[in-house]
Amino acid sequence: MPMPDMHTNNLLHFSSDYMEGAHPTILAALVRTNMESTSGYGTDSYCTYAAQAILDTCNCPDGEVRFLLGGTQANTLVIDALLRPWQGVVCAATGHVNVHEAGSIEAGGHKVMPIEHVNGKISATAIEKYADAWEQDDNREHMVQPALVYLSQPTEYGTLYSKAELEAIAQVCKSHNMQLFVDGARLAYALAAPENDVSLSDLARLTDVFYIGGTKCGLLFGEAVVFTKKNMIAGLTPLIKQHGGLLAKGRLLGVQFGELFSNNLYERIGQSAIACATRIKNHLAEKGFDLYIDSPTNQVFFVVTNAQMNWLRSRVEYGFMERLDANRCVIRFATCWSTTQQSTDQLLELIDQLAQCHI
Amino acid sequence: MPMPDMHTNNLLHFSSDYMEGAHPTILAALVRTNMESTSGYGTDSYCTYAAQAILDTCNCPDGEVRFLLGGTQANTLVIDALLRPWQGVVCAATGHVNVHEAGSIEAGGHKVMPIEHVNGKISATAIEKYADAWEQDDNREHMVQPALVYLSQPTEYGTLYSKAELEAIAQVCKSHNMQLFVDGARLAYALAAPENDVSLSDLARLTDVFYIGGTKCGLLFGEAVVFTKKNMIAGLTPLIKQHGGLLAKGRLLGVQFGELFSNNLYERIGQSAIACATRIKNHLAEKGFDLYIDSPTNQVFFVVTNAQMNWLRSRVEYGFMERLDANRCVIRFATCWSTTQQSTDQLLELIDQLAQCHI
Amino acid sequence: MPMPDMHTNNLLHFSSDYMEGAHPTILAALVRTNMESTSGYGTDSYCTYAAQAILDTCNCPDGEVRFLLGGTQANTLVIDALLRPWQGVVCAATGHVNVHEAGSIEAGGHKVMPIEHVNGKISATAIEKYADAWEQDDNREHMVQPALVYLSQPTEYGTLYSKAELEAIAQVCKSHNMQLFVDGARLAYALAAPENDVSLSDLARLTDVFYIGGTKCGLLFGEAVVFTKKNMIAGLTPLIKQHGGLLAKGRLLGVQFGELFSNNLYERIGQSAIACATRIKNHLAEKGFDLYIDSPTNQVFFVVTNAQMNWLRSRVEYGFMERLDANRCVIRFATCWSTTQQSTDQLLELIDQLAQCHI
Amino acid sequence: MPMPDMHTNNLLHFSSDYMEGAHPTILAALVRTNMESTSGYGTDSYCTYAAQAILDTCNCPDGEVRFLLGGTQANTLVIDALLRPWQGVVCAATGHVNVHEAGSIEAGGHKVMPIEHVNGKISATAIEKYADAWEQDDNREHMVQPALVYLSQPTEYGTLYSKAELEAIAQVCKSHNMQLFVDGARLAYALAAPENDVSLSDLARLTDVFYIGGTKCGLLFGEAVVFTKKNMIAGLTPLIKQHGGLLAKGRLLGVQFGELFSNNLYERIGQSAIACATRIKNHLAEKGFDLYIDSPTNQVFFVVTNAQMNWLRSRVEYGFMERLDANRCVIRFATCWSTTQQSTDQLLELIDQLAQCHI
Repeated sequence: MPMPDMHTNNLLHFSSDYMEGAHPTILAALVRTNMESTSGYGTDSYCTYAAQAILDTCNCPDGEVRFLLGGTQANTLVIDALLRPWQGVVCAATGHVNVHEAGSIEAGGHKVMPIEHVNGKISATAIEKYADAWEQDDNREHMVQPALVYLSQPTEYGTLYSKAELEAIAQVCKSHNMQLFVDGARLAYALAAPENDVSLSDLARLTDVFYIGGTKCGLLFGEAVVFTKKNMIAGLTPLIKQHGGLLAKGRLLGVQFGELFSNNLYERIGQSAIACATRIKNHLAEKGFDLYIDSPTNQVFFVVTNAQMNWLRSRVEYGFMERLDANRCVIRFATCWSTTQQSTDQLLELIDQLAQCHI
Repeated sequence: MPMPDMHTNNLLHFSSDYMEGAHPTILAALVRTNMESTSGYGTDSYCTYAAQAILDTCNCPDGEVRFLLGGTQANTLVIDALLRPWQGVVCAATGHVNVHEAGSIEAGGHKVMPIEHVNGKISATAIEKYADAWEQDDNREHMVQPALVYLSQPTEYGTLYSKAELEAIAQVCKSHNMQLFVDGARLAYALAAPENDVSLSDLARLTDVFYIGGTKCGLLFGEAVVFTKKNMIAGLTPLIKQHGGLLAKGRLLGVQFGELFSNNLYERIGQSAIACATRIKNHLAEKGFDLYIDSPTNQVFFVVTNAQMNWLRSRVEYGFMERLDANRCVIRFATCWSTTQQSTDQLLELIDQLAQCHI
Repeated sequence: MPMPDMHTNNLLHFSSDYMEGAHPTILAALVRTNMESTSGYGTDSYCTYAAQAILDTCNCPDGEVRFLLGGTQANTLVIDALLRPWQGVVCAATGHVNVHEAGSIEAGGHKVMPIEHVNGKISATAIEKYADAWEQDDNREHMVQPALVYLSQPTEYGTLYSKAELEAIAQVCKSHNMQLFVDGARLAYALAAPENDVSLSDLARLTDVFYIGGTKCGLLFGEAVVFTKKNMIAGLTPLIKQHGGLLAKGRLLGVQFGELFSNNLYERIGQSAIACATRIKNHLAEKGFDLYIDSPTNQVFFVVTNAQMNWLRSRVEYGFMERLDANRCVIRFATCWSTTQQSTDQLLELIDQLAQCHI
Repeated sequence: MPMPDMHTNNLLHFSSDYMEGAHPTILAALVRTNMESTSGYGTDSYCTYAAQAILDTCNCPDGEVRFLLGGTQANTLVIDALLRPWQGVVCAATGHVNVHEAGSIEAGGHKVMPIEHVNGKISATAIEKYADAWEQDDNREHMVQPALVYLSQPTEYGTLYSKAELEAIAQVCKSHNMQLFVDGARLAYALAAPENDVSLSDLARLTDVFYIGGTKCGLLFGEAVVFTKKNMIAGLTPLIKQHGGLLAKGRLLGVQFGELFSNNLYERIGQSAIACATRIKNHLAEKGFDLYIDSPTNQVFFVVTNAQMNWLRSRVEYGFMERLDANRCVIRFATCWSTTQQSTDQLLELIDQLAQCHI
């Protein structure tokens, strides 16, 4: 019996940025190389090529790139690799490692230490205050050392750190002996945002480790972790294996990232998503909806009444964020590399209808 | 700049069974479904379909299937899910979890307890002796409880457990309160072997958990773990996430396994590999080479002198196994679903030449 | 060379409640039994006697008592024994497991989930709100399950849960499938406080696990953990061993706790400490010092200026708590079973002098 | 109700060396210092004095001493402190960390890698062979690195490493980048044995870490871990706390070890035990019993028939080791600092009777 077609629903799809497969160019590269025979576990020439292409793009000749399978794995591996058991991770209370990793960081033995944030961003000042408090506490040997700062660019709320903000944070980290790690699961959408002034080179210059997300930015799956200094981590390969990240057919990641970093695809791949998101955001504002956060990237957060949310539910897939009060919620539309002008036009039309039906 | 072609070497490729991409039928399914929009993390209808197809094939209506990314992850997840920290894994000294998982089982907190084996296989008798010793030791609360038996079908040496052997082991496990877990990373090559009398239904009937390997048997990547009873494991989803196994685009596994279990592909996919391996094995024996183990599956282990190994090195990729003495080694040729008659003919010819050159 | 006498300073000692050795009655029991030969690892008759005496005192015939060496070990063991890796601990932000265990809970794999508190106490309402939020979140499988509530009686601020408060919390735990664990490191000082209405029987009735602190309440060392149902925990003995808690000469704990629960010593041992603390607290208030918290147990928290703190430093050992602003701090005087009327008189006199010197 | 006297049995006590309390001199020191007020967690002057006394005795001015509570804790702490998760412990198959720690080493994430032994001892040659095999394996990044060698002095069978043997092992460790750790739970009985030529200074010179056992050698409890270089371990204090080893009344260990290393008590404390054990061993041999191992320390291993073992069971406590065949077992008599001439005389008489009763 053949596998049947799965008839998907007729809704518009704006719930998240990992709903489709791979960008056609990426998929074509996998098809083109499928029957080639290569060595395993990331020792093949595609991985070598892709790693070098990334280091070149980042102006990071002394760095080291490793390809992992997903964001949770990247976050967990990096934190386990950089920290010892009495050291913890400082991050926004909304940070992915604090809220949505099913306790993976703690399962690896490390405390997550949330601090105050504004729209998902934490400040150099707040980080320094936290580090100072630990350093000055006589009981600090009975406490967890804040040893690593975790940021996302863009953040979980789609906001961006500016270069100046990132430089200030990097400075605080240096002077307080903390490492800086940036989660770039959606990094392509930051790079493509007009407001953005942080380049890949800046990330390589200012952080200890960051990763370039593939899963949400055009690949079937995969994240490229950039260790900005070679041999930072003893035993990196067995550590990756212990985290379930050493893919037998490692070349799948080499081929995908190799293609993504050829012809400047990574710099272009987020552009249409930003264009579509900007149209949606502006249209919502124009039609009188409250934006929850004015995000410059591919996620649009806005406020709806319960009735409006019900009306939308049968017409478009969205992301539910949180309940504001008994009558109102925050929801999200997310675009991505696969979002078309046509589906965006249809969404704008839906927004018009919703605005007009006075519910 | 486009990604350059990687010119692979001109050697014949018999080093392992994960050197190419996916079986063309599997790849076609990924291409066909690429732009469909589905829900994430394995909640899509392809995953549902594939899980049901597997349970149907295994006659295991009360089971539960989860799709993971690779073998190390499957071994680690299952063992962590089934055991508590004072419980250990009984296996062959040659077992993959004892030798080649970079300490992942111990990193998850569990002792691996190797016992004697014959050609990679352990016996019900040896398992029972080990369990008895623990049960009868007055100090057993200061020792690790043997709580799970790990087997591979086929084993690391390509050998097979018979149905009678497996039934005896299952019986010992039951009477000593141990769970039985079978690693099926190369299971397709067991199912396709003429000597084999253990079906997927037998595995479902006799084990607590087993997995159906995809990575080495036609998929880009992926292993289907069959828990033979539903809800055996509390918190299975967060546990999988903690092990880096919750793929955002989970449908990649659903599509691949759905296709693999349609049109009986899984039962057929190992047949040509076995045919090729049998030709190679017989030819080696005929030409006077010592088989190290007479394996009935897709791996052929045989003995060469150092000079012979050097001669081969520039002509064919093989797997190095172990040094027998100062002058002789064991090496391996592995076939897989992608091995062609043509490349097998070329290998037989090489063997002829090697036999004639008297080195 | 003999060990020299250590001349301790001439300060008054009110910094904490673990500064001296054991209550003379306890020490006498250790001396009396010193040359007896018993079996090891807690299997001796002193341990059996002490466990039964505790269960009798707690009206908990179906419970099980285990003796551990200290508070960190008790907290870590109980949490590791009760939780699986995706489950976390709800507690006050000021809770010992959140702040002062050097990350031991996370090192064991569990997230600590701090919630709002008042004077160190959390409410049934706040706990329920937290549990509800998790239960109703569609993403809860990507989050940590709140599976255990941790309280201290008295709290880190010396405050007490009333019986009604504890009953409400126990009810919420039951209806949300959470376990309730009470840290009783200073429990004797709760039991001896006139305000207290929570008995050992109440703790046994309302919690899943609690412990009776010995280290701060008259023993050289040791905590008696009461599991209120027998055999709650599979593998409890090896788990204790893995936590470094299986003392070879386990009878040291049996003898000490056996003596502590003979002649009602445990109920009496905190009384003089409470009397002394109450005198100190009232005297401070009378002399115009601000109490930071009006604690009914053996810890007195109050506000001093920097100059006052400096004045005290050369006269009495106190505990530093926190800086309130540039000019003021919170410090603590703690009494214990060994605090004498004489040293309390001397402290009151110091307070008089401090009040008069107008700094 | 007062705690009743526990009437112990009338058997002779030769089952192990942790059946009584503390050596009277040690206990007297605890009593003498009981009401002194000191700072907590090992920061007191007794701990400082004891640490210095140990370093002086070991000629190890650059070392660092930490006091832990028991042997399992010492083994687990040291291994966790020295190793990363992909690194393992090489030891004798009979090593305590391999057999009798309830999986604590693996629970901390590390593989135990047993190698061949002779009477509980492993050789420099066997260690080097194991290290070589790993270094030369192309798959070593998928394997556990042998990174630490664990020995016991005396071994689990009471045998002793000579200075020459230890020097050879230290040399292999150095040249293969492995650390050397010696478990000295029964070290006093090695130091007191006439055959012994390994001093505390030798241990400090040749190992990275070793510990001086107190529990089995005269203390109520406690092991002094000697790190032979200061600051070898980052975060040592929080690591100790996470292992449940940071005793609030840390001075209990300082007082005991301070006394043990005053007046050369440690060097003398094992002497009578060795004298008694030697008398027992010689008597057994004289009376025709087979010694299982000719141990020069405080443990005497010999062979008895089942009937002989039954006869002994109602007369003397012994340690059961293992079953040799259907009719014979190995049992152990252990002496210690508290063994008297009188009880040894009684045991010799029992041996006479047993030899005469022809069972």
